[in-house]
Amino acid sequence: MNIDDAKRLDAADPLRSLRDLFTLPDGVTYLDGNSLGALPRATPERIRRAVEQEWGRDLIKSWNTAGWIDLPRRLGDRLAPWLGARPGEVLVADSTSINLYKVLHAALQLQQGKRRVVVSERSNFPTDNYIAQSVARAHGGELVLAERPEDIPPLLDERCAVLMLTHVNYRSGRMHDMGLLTRWAHQAGALAVWDLCHSAGAVPIDLLGAAADFAIGCGYKYLNGGPGAPAFVWMHPRHEGQVWQPLTGWMGHANPFDFDSDYQPAPGIQQYQCGTPAVLAATGLDTALDVFDAAQKLGGMKALRNKSLALTEAFIDSVEARVPGAVIATPRDAAMRGSQVSFSLPRGTDGYAVMQALIARGFIGDFRAGDPELLRFGFAPLYNGFADVVRAVDTLADIVATRSWDAPEFTSRSKVT
Amino acid sequence: MNIDDAKRLDAADPLRSLRDLFTLPDGVTYLDGNSLGALPRATPERIRRAVEQEWGRDLIKSWNTAGWIDLPRRLGDRLAPWLGARPGEVLVADSTSINLYKVLHAALQLQQGKRRVVVSERSNFPTDNYIAQSVARAHGGELVLAERPEDIPPLLDERCAVLMLTHVNYRSGRMHDMGLLTRWAHQAGALAVWDLCHSAGAVPIDLLGAAADFAIGCGYKYLNGGPGAPAFVWMHPRHEGQVWQPLTGWMGHANPFDFDSDYQPAPGIQQYQCGTPAVLAATGLDTALDVFDAAQKLGGMKALRNKSLALTEAFIDSVEARVPGAVIATPRDAAMRGSQVSFSLPRGTDGYAVMQALIARGFIGDFRAGDPELLRFGFAPLYNGFADVVRAVDTLADIVATRSWDAPEFTSRSKVT
Repeated sequence: MNIDDAKRLDAADPLRSLRDLFTLPDGVTYLDGNSLGALPRATPERIRRAVEQEWGRDLIKSWNTAGWIDLPRRLGDRLAPWLGARPGEVLVADSTSINLYKVLHAALQLQQGKRRVVVSERSNFPTDNYIAQSVARAHGGELVLAERPEDIPPLLDERCAVLMLTHVNYRSGRMHDMGLLTRWAHQAGALAVWDLCHSAGAVPIDLLGAAADFAIGCGYKYLNGGPGAPAFVWMHPRHEGQVWQPLTGWMGHANPFDFDSDYQPAPGIQQYQCGTPAVLAATGLDTALDVFDAAQKLGGMKALRNKSLALTEAFIDSVEARVPGAVIATPRDAAMRGSQVSFSLPRGTDGYAVMQALIARGFIGDFRAGDPELLRFGFAPLYNGFADVVRAVDTLADIVATRSWDAPEFTSRSKVT
Repeated sequence: MNIDDAKRLDAADPLRSLRDLFTLPDGVTYLDGNSLGALPRATPERIRRAVEQEWGRDLIKSWNTAGWIDLPRRLGDRLAPWLGARPGEVLVADSTSINLYKVLHAALQLQQGKRRVVVSERSNFPTDNYIAQSVARAHGGELVLAERPEDIPPLLDERCAVLMLTHVNYRSGRMHDMGLLTRWAHQAGALAVWDLCHSAGAVPIDLLGAAADFAIGCGYKYLNGGPGAPAFVWMHPRHEGQVWQPLTGWMGHANPFDFDSDYQPAPGIQQYQCGTPAVLAATGLDTALDVFDAAQKLGGMKALRNKSLALTEAFIDSVEARVPGAVIATPRDAAMRGSQVSFSLPRGTDGYAVMQALIARGFIGDFRAGDPELLRFGFAPLYNGFADVVRAVDTLADIVATRSWDAPEFTSRSKVT
């Protein structure tokens, strides 16, 4: 694909208008929406209103008049259809790590001490495995890690309480078959907890169709809620009223404003709220969901997924064709691919420095050290296009071919990569 | 005190200029800063910059360039002197309820199973007691509640692991003697956990001087961080490296960017971070702390406390003089008083309706049902003055004397009070 092909595809893209709903800096091609989503154009004004009018002018009244008190449920209802869930089943609150803690405790309680092992993958995002270690130990169990996806099924044995997986792997971009793995987990007597951090807003998700047990995920990646936007949590309705999650804050109480002495959990997903909603942070996510409403009118997740797969496929093809020695870590099989592409460069090419050189030329992706060292590029179908793909690979190929990455300003490491 | 006296006192107030650092709506006297602090004048512009420039323009780079990654520690350092703590000991993250969960687990671990009872008061804010019930049960213990403050000492027995108290009671405004109760707890072999939600920014706090063990508190009351601003957590340095708190997210890891398979806690308070910082919410608190920097130059907490006590004393005197049958629930003893005043009205006077009538006339306080039903008025020495006191009591006295509260628009209850 050359730039003329790409421009033709962009011009014909039925989702093209969505890009105008974002503010992206001039001269920047942003391919890191899998880490921090871009700024929706409407967000600054909406947050300004929340700050100046809801907080500054209406003050404490806004708990009622601006609906602050309902934000966790209202945002959950807006998000539900993008997760394959129903309104009333999703809550927006706290962080991914904290929500994972809640649902893992709940899942282990559901196993009533008969099973205590949490199974996951070593390649899972670290916070998931750290939280799972903590929760499994609290229940007298342990976290057992599969080295490769194909090592998961043998671990689904009579000790396995919970299969906890990230739907789309943050490094490789590989996507699990949620329906199949959930079925296998259930057949083995385990429950399935899904981390949707790299899925929500980017790939089709059908939690109810998969009959998954719990899910959590991030509000600031493909959902574009802003840095540190609250995360989400979902529980299958069949588990309602069975267990308590341990973060028993007043906002998860059945009657928070009765100020009872004893905790009594609210029915359903409301129990998974703990403290007061982070209003300003949630407001960013609320505005970002307007963009998804617009996307719904243009074909919804089906259209987003088609575009995402076309973008990532074009990127894989171009990198393989243009960058000698690049090894793609992301599956070519569309059914196994999220909305990002990761690859390593040949020994002797400093992936970190290549990414810094790319950034210096206006192309922002992400670099992760490890084995193999991976460059990662996220393609957000809401705002990325085919010209982004072509220009990024052109620039990457040039940087590698000319070794222009091999300069002190690119090779010296900063704190966060 | 009449309005002329009040105006003279306001004119002579050395902290008078601080009020101009807040945006308060015209025609409103805000006496509910104990629930949600007012909007600092600089906050909208600072949040706009965070949204448009840090997020929208600089995107993922802002983790480094805007210092997002350091926010929890940097804000903790700024807050530390107002808590009687040192820089490096305080972290700003998550909610009050979640931070309480962390420190209660840590405190019970420190007791190594030898003691499992958490002692608190029935009148504590519900979320504290709910969280304590959950944590105590997880350790095989229980929460035991004192009915009155004087019932606390007998509960500090050989079963007591932790004395958990809110420094200033949210309903009565009564302040505990932190040094004395911490000493009693320690003499009994218990640890002391302090909730500073209604203290931070309003009263002198000396955590190190009291040799307290842990403290947590809210960022959006007297600290003015905005609705749902992140909370804070402090641990005495003598407990460093002794225990793990259970919310073991990656940001509390010793080397979060090494992506180790196993969790290893960071040294000191950093372990109490869990997930990614809520950047936009934390930015509100960052800006609010500029106001405290300005207050520091005008006499600091000593000056704030003097003014706060003078305001609450004037309010108590005026209510007692002007509102027949009002019974003050807040101690007259300055050493036992926070920065709010609560009182009940005689049977037959609907406190809720009186508060609605006050709000309709521009005076915002808070009403809490219960026994007795209390009207609460917070006096934030950063932005409240003596004229606020006089006008509020004038209006209150008029509403009660004329029974103008007894109208359907005031007596019908809304969802959140």
